[in-house]
Amino acid sequence: MSKLRFRISMSLDGFVAGPNQSVENPLGIGGMRLHEWAFALAIFRVRHGLDGGEVDASTPVVAESLTNIGATVMGRNMFGGHPGPWDADKPWNGWWGVNPPFHHPVFVLTHYARKPLELEGGTTFTFVTDGIEAALERARRGAHGQDVALSGGASAAQQYLTAGLVDEMEISLVPTLLGSGERLFDGVGDDLRGLEHVRTVAAPHVTHLKFARR
Amino acid sequence: MSKLRFRISMSLDGFVAGPNQSVENPLGIGGMRLHEWAFALAIFRVRHGLDGGEVDASTPVVAESLTNIGATVMGRNMFGGHPGPWDADKPWNGWWGVNPPFHHPVFVLTHYARKPLELEGGTTFTFVTDGIEAALERARRGAHGQDVALSGGASAAQQYLTAGLVDEMEISLVPTLLGSGERLFDGVGDDLRGLEHVRTVAAPHVTHLKFARR
Repeated sequence: MSKLRFRISMSLDGFVAGPNQSVENPLGIGGMRLHEWAFALAIFRVRHGLDGGEVDASTPVVAESLTNIGATVMGRNMFGGHPGPWDADKPWNGWWGVNPPFHHPVFVLTHYARKPLELEGGTTFTFVTDGIEAALERARRGAHGQDVALSGGASAAQQYLTAGLVDEMEISLVPTLLGSGERLFDGVGDDLRGLEHVRTVAAPHVTHLKFARR
Repeated sequence: MSKLRFRISMSLDGFVAGPNQSVENPLGIGGMRLHEWAFALAIFRVRHGLDGGEVDASTPVVAESLTNIGATVMGRNMFGGHPGPWDADKPWNGWWGVNPPFHHPVFVLTHYARKPLELEGGTTFTFVTDGIEAALERARRGAHGQDVALSGGASAAQQYLTAGLVDEMEISLVPTLLGSGERLFDGVGDDLRGLEHVRTVAAPHVTHLKFARR
């Protein structure tokens, strides 16, 4: 069965986004600090059409997280733009431009119906209004036997974690404090729902902690 | 100059003690899970008069944290017992029995004056009512040129971190969730006050992240 796999960068104090997220500052104040380790990597840069970059102990971790993924699920806040109903006149089409780096079906959790958005390079955003299990089921079908990536944000992750639907989780822990913002594990309680720590990779500027079902 | 060095075990969701701390359950519900990695180690067990135990990648980390320490500062809640004024009839003398494992002067932050408590093996608890800087100054004098350990709990740590007085910090991150309790970095904000990540040790059941001033 195809797995639901979740990787996310988190600060030492447990935040995955800073405070005051906006269209201008989608990661919130200081939130960019969580991703600098990734932006420096060649494997990340090539995916976003950029030259150069480094190879270090994070490279195989990122490579693994991209391997055998046939679809993605994400929360509305991660798709971004604005809260509430979609703006028909100026539709928000995501942060990623005309050719997003997914190249497979992406299912966006939302309370507001919208027609699918087909962009270049094989990425189609489908908007799912009937909940996390329906979104996962559609993503599994869209993945054609490959795994499904859960790409965040905090609220979507909390819902899938609490429902026990996450099969693998990789926390990329960044040794910095954000102080406020979106906490990954808020409301998840004291139970990892069968996920156990299976691997630690100490890389420059980040430590990757992998969890899986045994 | 003698350093203030802080080591503590923290959950993946940022807690250093569980909820509902009490005399019967000093670490709060689930808090013991943060320390199982240490309890299994020979270097920990011998210090508490116990036989056996393991040697693993955590052993040198614990050994380092115990080396060149001449005094300890801790918060009232870590010394424990009960809140408010000391009970003159049934004085609380700490969690550690007649021969505590410190074997050096220990300075306890409290709002309530009390005469020093001299126990066996060279451990004397001195109760300091005039704040964190006074306690640190007295501990430095008591350490005779060696470093000072800050042993917790969360509130004492937050005060020393916020004041920028911590010179080294080692977070022993345990891959478990507590869900509630005492958060280490509550109120510290988004600034590590000059502490930078300098080392990661991936050990069984725990990852040690060391921070220091460069």
